[in-house]
Amino acid sequence: AIAGHAAALFEHGALAGLRVVVTAGPTREALDPVRYLSNHSSGKMGFALATACVDAGARTTLISGPVTLETPAHVARRDVESAEDMLAASLAALPACDIFIACAAVADYRPAQIAGEKIKKEDEQLTLTLVRNPDIVATVAAAEPRPFTVGFAAETRDLLAYARGKLERKRLDLVVANDVAAEGIGFNSDDNAVTLLWPGGEEALPRTGKGSLARLIIERIAARYAAARGTAVVSP
Amino acid sequence: AIAGHAAALFEHGALAGLRVVVTAGPTREALDPVRYLSNHSSGKMGFALATACVDAGARTTLISGPVTLETPAHVARRDVESAEDMLAASLAALPACDIFIACAAVADYRPAQIAGEKIKKEDEQLTLTLVRNPDIVATVAAAEPRPFTVGFAAETRDLLAYARGKLERKRLDLVVANDVAAEGIGFNSDDNAVTLLWPGGEEALPRTGKGSLARLIIERIAARYAAARGTAVVSP
Repeated sequence: AIAGHAAALFEHGALAGLRVVVTAGPTREALDPVRYLSNHSSGKMGFALATACVDAGARTTLISGPVTLETPAHVARRDVESAEDMLAASLAALPACDIFIACAAVADYRPAQIAGEKIKKEDEQLTLTLVRNPDIVATVAAAEPRPFTVGFAAETRDLLAYARGKLERKRLDLVVANDVAAEGIGFNSDDNAVTLLWPGGEEALPRTGKGSLARLIIERIAARYAAARGTAVVSP
Repeated sequence: AIAGHAAALFEHGALAGLRVVVTAGPTREALDPVRYLSNHSSGKMGFALATACVDAGARTTLISGPVTLETPAHVARRDVESAEDMLAASLAALPACDIFIACAAVADYRPAQIAGEKIKKEDEQLTLTLVRNPDIVATVAAAEPRPFTVGFAAETRDLLAYARGKLERKRLDLVVANDVAAEGIGFNSDDNAVTLLWPGGEEALPRTGKGSLARLIIERIAARYAAARGTAVVSP
């Protein structure tokens, strides 16, 4: 039913005619052939956003880290592992991207070296040197020409101050701030509650299921996109 | 059909009347509330072994790290996250355990400290100190009284030499050696090929699906268990 609805909306919804790229899930940063560093992320929020984009009429590409979710109908999916893979896939998608939604929980650091063979556990302690990963959403926001760029902030404290800082420092168009310390919402849960921040404004969205929340977020993104581009908002 | 077959076998199979504990999946070792260190492991092999144990008539407990698999019918499942959690669950299960099959891909190391708040990415480099995790299978094999203890060796090189060393050093009854570097088999694949090693012998099993392979492994474990206990092998 949703798929049929979506197909009907390809010419009509709030994102009709637009091309949206959504990143989702965690990334995995290899230490050796068997071990990796990762983040808690089920990918559910990003996949729900991709579905909501299709429902809103957008041609939608989903760049996903390792998750165990079905590809939503009418979505072009690219699977990646590491942050560097995700950056490469994101840059490759930019020439056909009006709106970029960086929902993935990208690992900030990766091991400085990847061992070709499994590291043996001979020592009581092991010191691991990590180096910064590329900042995907900042790289996309700094591209020329740039898409309307949406970032996510997931924090356990000082959420709104951090999210506002991220919006300004990375020159994003919108930040979705997600308090992952709150009970029953966030990374691996089905519910979520977020606050949207943009230059000059913010709005707290009600706590609800990820599907409904994704539709609300996409509606607001469409409105902010239209405002930023100086065009009228198309009602869904 | 398998479940019905299993129920019928509770009084008849090669493991009839025995209590088996299987560990499965990866463990996750938290760095902070959002980041963790883990291993590639789908848990499929451990879950297939648990199913095969039920089919062979065993009362079966499955101690599983974070995976996205359905609990097999007639299996008592305990979900854990870290290696320390898995050790605690394993020790708690020992008083009612005849055979312990350590199939989980336990993280050898965990971060020395878990940060209470998300670590900020302020520095270009980050040094992480890791400490050794408890050795679950060796701890179980050293318990008194001890169950018949089966370990797994997953290596990218020198597999059989390493597996033989593990058998002897940890005083295991059987080691299942798995060449994870081979193409199309191992951690996240559906196929697998292994060699079994025990004190005084070894046997290479043919490459096959994890379900068939699990039944072969359980059949061999039952035979080795019976030999070790000086009882006749019960034909399935």
